[in-house]
Amino acid sequence: MKHVNKKLWGGRFSKSIDSLVHQFNASIPFDVRLYEEDIIGSIAWARGLMAAGVLSDQEAETIIDGLEQVRSEFVSDRFDLHSGDEDIHSAVERRLVEIIGPLGGKLHTGRSRNDQVATDFRLWVMRACDVLGDQIAALKHALLVRAEDDIDVPMPGYTHLQHAQPITCGHWLLSHFWPLCRDSERFAQARKTASVMPLGSAALAGVAFALDRQALAAELGFDAVSENSIDAVSDRDFAVDFVYASTILSVHLSQLSEQLIVFSSTEFGLISLDDSYATGSSLMPQKKNPDTLELTRGKAGRLIGNLTGLLATLKALPSSYDKDLQEDKESLFDSFDTLLLALPVMAGVIRTMKLCKDRMADHLDSGLLATDLADHLVSRGVVFREAHEMVGQLIRLAEDKDVELSDLEPHDFLSISDQFGGDFEHVFDIQAAIARRSSIGGIGPEALRRQLDAARTKLDLTARRL
Amino acid sequence: MKHVNKKLWGGRFSKSIDSLVHQFNASIPFDVRLYEEDIIGSIAWARGLMAAGVLSDQEAETIIDGLEQVRSEFVSDRFDLHSGDEDIHSAVERRLVEIIGPLGGKLHTGRSRNDQVATDFRLWVMRACDVLGDQIAALKHALLVRAEDDIDVPMPGYTHLQHAQPITCGHWLLSHFWPLCRDSERFAQARKTASVMPLGSAALAGVAFALDRQALAAELGFDAVSENSIDAVSDRDFAVDFVYASTILSVHLSQLSEQLIVFSSTEFGLISLDDSYATGSSLMPQKKNPDTLELTRGKAGRLIGNLTGLLATLKALPSSYDKDLQEDKESLFDSFDTLLLALPVMAGVIRTMKLCKDRMADHLDSGLLATDLADHLVSRGVVFREAHEMVGQLIRLAEDKDVELSDLEPHDFLSISDQFGGDFEHVFDIQAAIARRSSIGGIGPEALRRQLDAARTKLDLTARRL
Amino acid sequence: MKHVNKKLWGGRFSKSIDSLVHQFNASIPFDVRLYEEDIIGSIAWARGLMAAGVLSDQEAETIIDGLEQVRSEFVSDRFDLHSGDEDIHSAVERRLVEIIGPLGGKLHTGRSRNDQVATDFRLWVMRACDVLGDQIAALKHALLVRAEDDIDVPMPGYTHLQHAQPITCGHWLLSHFWPLCRDSERFAQARKTASVMPLGSAALAGVAFALDRQALAAELGFDAVSENSIDAVSDRDFAVDFVYASTILSVHLSQLSEQLIVFSSTEFGLISLDDSYATGSSLMPQKKNPDTLELTRGKAGRLIGNLTGLLATLKALPSSYDKDLQEDKESLFDSFDTLLLALPVMAGVIRTMKLCKDRMADHLDSGLLATDLADHLVSRGVVFREAHEMVGQLIRLAEDKDVELSDLEPHDFLSISDQFGGDFEHVFDIQAAIARRSSIGGIGPEALRRQLDAARTKLDLTARRL
Amino acid sequence: MKHVNKKLWGGRFSKSIDSLVHQFNASIPFDVRLYEEDIIGSIAWARGLMAAGVLSDQEAETIIDGLEQVRSEFVSDRFDLHSGDEDIHSAVERRLVEIIGPLGGKLHTGRSRNDQVATDFRLWVMRACDVLGDQIAALKHALLVRAEDDIDVPMPGYTHLQHAQPITCGHWLLSHFWPLCRDSERFAQARKTASVMPLGSAALAGVAFALDRQALAAELGFDAVSENSIDAVSDRDFAVDFVYASTILSVHLSQLSEQLIVFSSTEFGLISLDDSYATGSSLMPQKKNPDTLELTRGKAGRLIGNLTGLLATLKALPSSYDKDLQEDKESLFDSFDTLLLALPVMAGVIRTMKLCKDRMADHLDSGLLATDLADHLVSRGVVFREAHEMVGQLIRLAEDKDVELSDLEPHDFLSISDQFGGDFEHVFDIQAAIARRSSIGGIGPEALRRQLDAARTKLDLTARRL
Repeated sequence: MKHVNKKLWGGRFSKSIDSLVHQFNASIPFDVRLYEEDIIGSIAWARGLMAAGVLSDQEAETIIDGLEQVRSEFVSDRFDLHSGDEDIHSAVERRLVEIIGPLGGKLHTGRSRNDQVATDFRLWVMRACDVLGDQIAALKHALLVRAEDDIDVPMPGYTHLQHAQPITCGHWLLSHFWPLCRDSERFAQARKTASVMPLGSAALAGVAFALDRQALAAELGFDAVSENSIDAVSDRDFAVDFVYASTILSVHLSQLSEQLIVFSSTEFGLISLDDSYATGSSLMPQKKNPDTLELTRGKAGRLIGNLTGLLATLKALPSSYDKDLQEDKESLFDSFDTLLLALPVMAGVIRTMKLCKDRMADHLDSGLLATDLADHLVSRGVVFREAHEMVGQLIRLAEDKDVELSDLEPHDFLSISDQFGGDFEHVFDIQAAIARRSSIGGIGPEALRRQLDAARTKLDLTARRL
Repeated sequence: MKHVNKKLWGGRFSKSIDSLVHQFNASIPFDVRLYEEDIIGSIAWARGLMAAGVLSDQEAETIIDGLEQVRSEFVSDRFDLHSGDEDIHSAVERRLVEIIGPLGGKLHTGRSRNDQVATDFRLWVMRACDVLGDQIAALKHALLVRAEDDIDVPMPGYTHLQHAQPITCGHWLLSHFWPLCRDSERFAQARKTASVMPLGSAALAGVAFALDRQALAAELGFDAVSENSIDAVSDRDFAVDFVYASTILSVHLSQLSEQLIVFSSTEFGLISLDDSYATGSSLMPQKKNPDTLELTRGKAGRLIGNLTGLLATLKALPSSYDKDLQEDKESLFDSFDTLLLALPVMAGVIRTMKLCKDRMADHLDSGLLATDLADHLVSRGVVFREAHEMVGQLIRLAEDKDVELSDLEPHDFLSISDQFGGDFEHVFDIQAAIARRSSIGGIGPEALRRQLDAARTKLDLTARRL
Repeated sequence: MKHVNKKLWGGRFSKSIDSLVHQFNASIPFDVRLYEEDIIGSIAWARGLMAAGVLSDQEAETIIDGLEQVRSEFVSDRFDLHSGDEDIHSAVERRLVEIIGPLGGKLHTGRSRNDQVATDFRLWVMRACDVLGDQIAALKHALLVRAEDDIDVPMPGYTHLQHAQPITCGHWLLSHFWPLCRDSERFAQARKTASVMPLGSAALAGVAFALDRQALAAELGFDAVSENSIDAVSDRDFAVDFVYASTILSVHLSQLSEQLIVFSSTEFGLISLDDSYATGSSLMPQKKNPDTLELTRGKAGRLIGNLTGLLATLKALPSSYDKDLQEDKESLFDSFDTLLLALPVMAGVIRTMKLCKDRMADHLDSGLLATDLADHLVSRGVVFREAHEMVGQLIRLAEDKDVELSDLEPHDFLSISDQFGGDFEHVFDIQAAIARRSSIGGIGPEALRRQLDAARTKLDLTARRL
Repeated sequence: MKHVNKKLWGGRFSKSIDSLVHQFNASIPFDVRLYEEDIIGSIAWARGLMAAGVLSDQEAETIIDGLEQVRSEFVSDRFDLHSGDEDIHSAVERRLVEIIGPLGGKLHTGRSRNDQVATDFRLWVMRACDVLGDQIAALKHALLVRAEDDIDVPMPGYTHLQHAQPITCGHWLLSHFWPLCRDSERFAQARKTASVMPLGSAALAGVAFALDRQALAAELGFDAVSENSIDAVSDRDFAVDFVYASTILSVHLSQLSEQLIVFSSTEFGLISLDDSYATGSSLMPQKKNPDTLELTRGKAGRLIGNLTGLLATLKALPSSYDKDLQEDKESLFDSFDTLLLALPVMAGVIRTMKLCKDRMADHLDSGLLATDLADHLVSRGVVFREAHEMVGQLIRLAEDKDVELSDLEPHDFLSISDQFGGDFEHVFDIQAAIARRSSIGGIGPEALRRQLDAARTKLDLTARRL
């Protein structure tokens, strides 16, 4: 294997570097996926050089034709990587020169890999934000559809994984819709941060000819141009913002996964995964394991690591551009790839899982209405704190007798407070308890209708933007 | 020490919990700083209960007067924490009951600590965003002022901590201005995420009476109300967004610190810290150490840890509200406190440091103009890649002869290429090299003037918003 | 507040630093807890200076008496911190000089805070390893005792939180014993790493007189002396090792917590927490929440953050001693303090929780024996993979018929394979299924007895060492 | 692409899972590198089944021959992965059945992928510890050789990146030797943790026949067998220990890199990288960038992320084996691969870099001897704190006069203290200052000789063990 890096770095070097160092330095194994952005950027750059008078029209046209040919080789999987291609930029230029001859060497005039890679990477991230935005919207849609179908089916609500109060199945499903809206927003922000063009910053000091950077930015689809050439080549905030948005999204997915894993246990049995999204055991024939959900949960750890690693890499870098910045890509690509699988898989899980309404009903015990019983006492004039205390004593009594709260005898209630003298059986009506909670965001029918409308609107808006 | 938690949790419990468990569970040592938000929130809640007919006007007034008294006790540092106060919410309510009697027990009607703490914490974070926003603006101002003063003073520009090309001192300083603009933006976003009111979500299912949540939100200064009561009590995205904004800001500060530490070494000598911001050695009398900068650099690690820890805590939580969420505060408070010191200290460093222009000039060697020499060849018709190669050979020649690039003899240049036949001495004029780079974002005088204007505008805008 | 740091750093400085910088730099708020180690170290140092002839016997004695007085002031909580005390070392020395006069200034001869703080911190960490080692042993003991009591009580075993195979209660409890043994080992290793004395390395270059460092190490209880003075002042591996050991321990505790939280849900009901270790809800009177376990689980995130932060702080430090190293203590102290509460709380949870054997029995369905049914077929000559397939078909049949596996009719079995012709009812005997698994590490009675013995031995050994 | 997982999981499933889920679940892309360990483990397992009477001698032999053939296909790169091979275990078994027929299905008797993968992975990690141990030893050797060559060459010592005291070049190089010794120790410990055999634990409950696990462990080279089958299938401590050892090693490498990057700047110029380990710029012909060192520094961030991610993944797992554990491998493999390149590259850097002794000498100014000057005053009876103060004043005087400390006039010295009456010129003799520091770990010739001996001994020991 003959390394030809000398070509790129020029006459400064008297020795060729050995293959281990080459392998250590090379980014081509992972930055090859930037080929599309690299070629688009180079075509725009050729036009910019032409407009600035650095290239003649003819030269620019030849270069652009050459680049288009390189692109078609990539698209049709005919591009041959050489062992000396240390990164996508040098690979494209090497091939360009092979195709059009020494004129290809003019393309890099005024440009450095420092601004080139930052430009490519930003274009890629902008596209990635759009792609994940669509996948998030699809998952939100799946949740919304399931929520609409069972919007008012009662089920136990949990805090601390203990029975708390009745909720509805649709309300529970929608509780996972809203975090995803915040995720959509974060990717939209990350896209905005990325959409600032560094091209024309050269190594760190800008170009030495009259380049119209704003025209270049418009051609490439950037919203703005960078204001400071040093910042432009070292700024990786857009990458961290993207990885951060990915990480918190994966944390949301891990929480949803955890709920579904617990709910699909034999003991809970509130949902049942479709066979397509569960796997078996090589040893135990009866197993139906929520592997996809466990992987989604576990991969949140991986994404937390990706974010941590990127931040630790960026910490305390000493100068405008340092090679440490080459470490910005793999963690980002990995986060993207992970979510690109995890999001549609989760949407599939949601769309296909069975909601076990019988088990939901089975688990609805009257203890879930303890708060409503206290509220009843409050309506009779008892101060809330005292009502809370009294109901607590009733709960203990029921436990001691091993019966449900609503199965205590009238005299049991009266033994705690004579405020239980009148009728209070209606407290144990779960539908009524649900209906009472109709302020915005609550579980009452009116509130749920309002929430569904808001969710539908949100989804339309998001879909339009992304 | 007598633990009185029984008061709060009521009759459900037959044993009082032991002191170790109390200490483990208690959040009062750190959430006491939410007292202002807790009392503001409770006053608004009392008004909400009154509007909903749950409290009479008289009751509400008594409660509000009582809360105002509790507030004044905190403000004047007369509030006594009891050993049984497990969190700020129970401490305030305990004191309220002491002041106004059992009526105080009515305040918690329809409210859970789940929505209460989320409300308090969001209000606190909104304020914290404003406070840090101001400190960031002050640091940006310090950078801008120093940059304006020395906008066109030449100094070596570095990539890979190696001499790259000449830049100007003002351009370098401004390269640290723009990252802070992105930080301002992130805190503005975090504030927006926080500004959604969870109050009225109760434990997880909403309130059982007609509460006007939008009026409540308006009174408390929230932009919106939460759409789903389950999400409302478990959502900590706003906290993570804040901690994330803090972390990447601290990474920016660490990069600036690193540069200043390296630049203030004896060997670089480009800047000199004011004595006020350096410290000495207990052993070595000659030392003047950049301790404040090293701490700022080191604390970026701490903030990365805070973010990581928070994300890891949130991962895979199983139900709406879990006690794990109590771990959301200390890392956020710590990140805030760290930056509240680090930002003004850094502004002080910037304002008072000496820029050693003589040393900057000393370090400007002609090797920094190697690119311009290649550009000169390009202007003579040489393809850039070949020009790059030729200049590289000249550099090696100069190294072998142990002279600067510009001190090579004419015949040395000609030995590499006859394109060096004409006049090219002007290439080694640093001011001219700087002046050539006048596209947007570059180091030429016109570009710098434009950048300064943009920075001034940005600062005004930011200052207005924050 | 008058800052007196000038005293410490000496004549190099013309300005006193302002209070913000002082607050930023000061470590006294957290390093004050090193007072005992600092004074012990200083007493040994005084003896070392005396032995080296730097101090007279009389001087050393006076200094040591003074230091003993300082110590007694700390112990009896009479030590007054001054606003100018930036760290514990300067505070102790300041007080020493107040007590014995200028002679106190001789103590620092040949010593730097660089080697002094490393020495203090190592001594503290060595002690902390012992303390946590004891707490781990206590938790292991609690698990062992509970395991012995119910060593052979059958319960469902879970993988993927799905029913897998029957196990025993004692075996399950012991599965949390062994990870703690690895934790003990890690703290023992961390102690060993810490037990290397840096004292005598001065700032970075060693002392300029004949100091007997080995005698000093022996007096202070170190196993060895550092071999390189530069490494000695910058090495924080011992701190990271300690924080790492703490983190993985907390991850183990989080896994145990998660299991107990899930097992104590209404739906599982396999255990019931003692009231002393559960808490209630301020709103819902019926709640009994596993708060202590949730906090233990959540705090694992915090400790992961502590480790990450420390590593990120240490990354890429440029020189022997940098002030960034001051950031080594808070995360370590926090990890220690967290575990010092979490370990005994967890031991209390284990000792007091109720094991609900009836519910364990209720959850034992015949599906847990599907593997044994396949094994039965294997014993009849069927290849395992085919047996696995057949039993899988039976399971589906049982699901379709909504009966348990063992409740299928004989003809159902025969419809899948004629290998079910003979008697196989014994397969569904859970005790027999357990008894069959008697290789080392298994759940059969003999294996369990062996495991208990091994655990008892391990605990004795650990207890002896720690 | 036809997915054949049905084969593996058996009859439980009515639908085949779709390709996205398959891709999400599959571990074959990364666990294929375990093929050697998987086959070794399976061969031993076949022998174990034979010894237990589960397989006949003939069956075992056929299976082992088949496995050997599978191995030879892997070794000679002729093994074809099928689209349905979800992991290495199923791929090997699938191929085995293709080769030897249905008998291959007997191999999995009594085994689960849970204990199988843990066994494979531990064997791999044990080998990885050995491999990295060798690479660490090679780097230590490189440092030792360079240190020996220039053991007594004086150079400035830095703390806070500021001039502190003179040290020697060899002492500086050795300061990076000792951290690597601690790294060797950590990998040795990680190997020990890994060397506990889980095989025979089946899914979680052990095997149902008389398996001699100790014989199996001996055959596979494990030091011990696991004591608890549940712990055995879920324990990933060995993986975390390995990743932790890798991370702190990479932090050490990042610190060495940072030093070399700073030292190779034009301004410091203390070392010069060999051309083989530096790279050029695509734009600036004069550049010689320390890319390999910057990558090594940056990759420490990546490894910190790997550790964080793994810990976050393990946090709060609910049951013995959860699929999240599949996420244990990629971060470990990545850490290993990174170090396998970084270590020899760093050794090459060390072996080939030029130590610029002239520049080292140039930077040795008399300010580095300020402490010795204070020591001189102490020897004249001045208390150290006062001596420190006086020398500080002299330093300021020298700064004001813009001269070196040693170039002050005699009357300048006397103006600060009459203790400067006698001769003190010898204080400014750097060699003498170095010689004075001869306690263990110091920079005096005798101490350095001792240190070299200790380092040589350590290296021999390490080399022997690894």
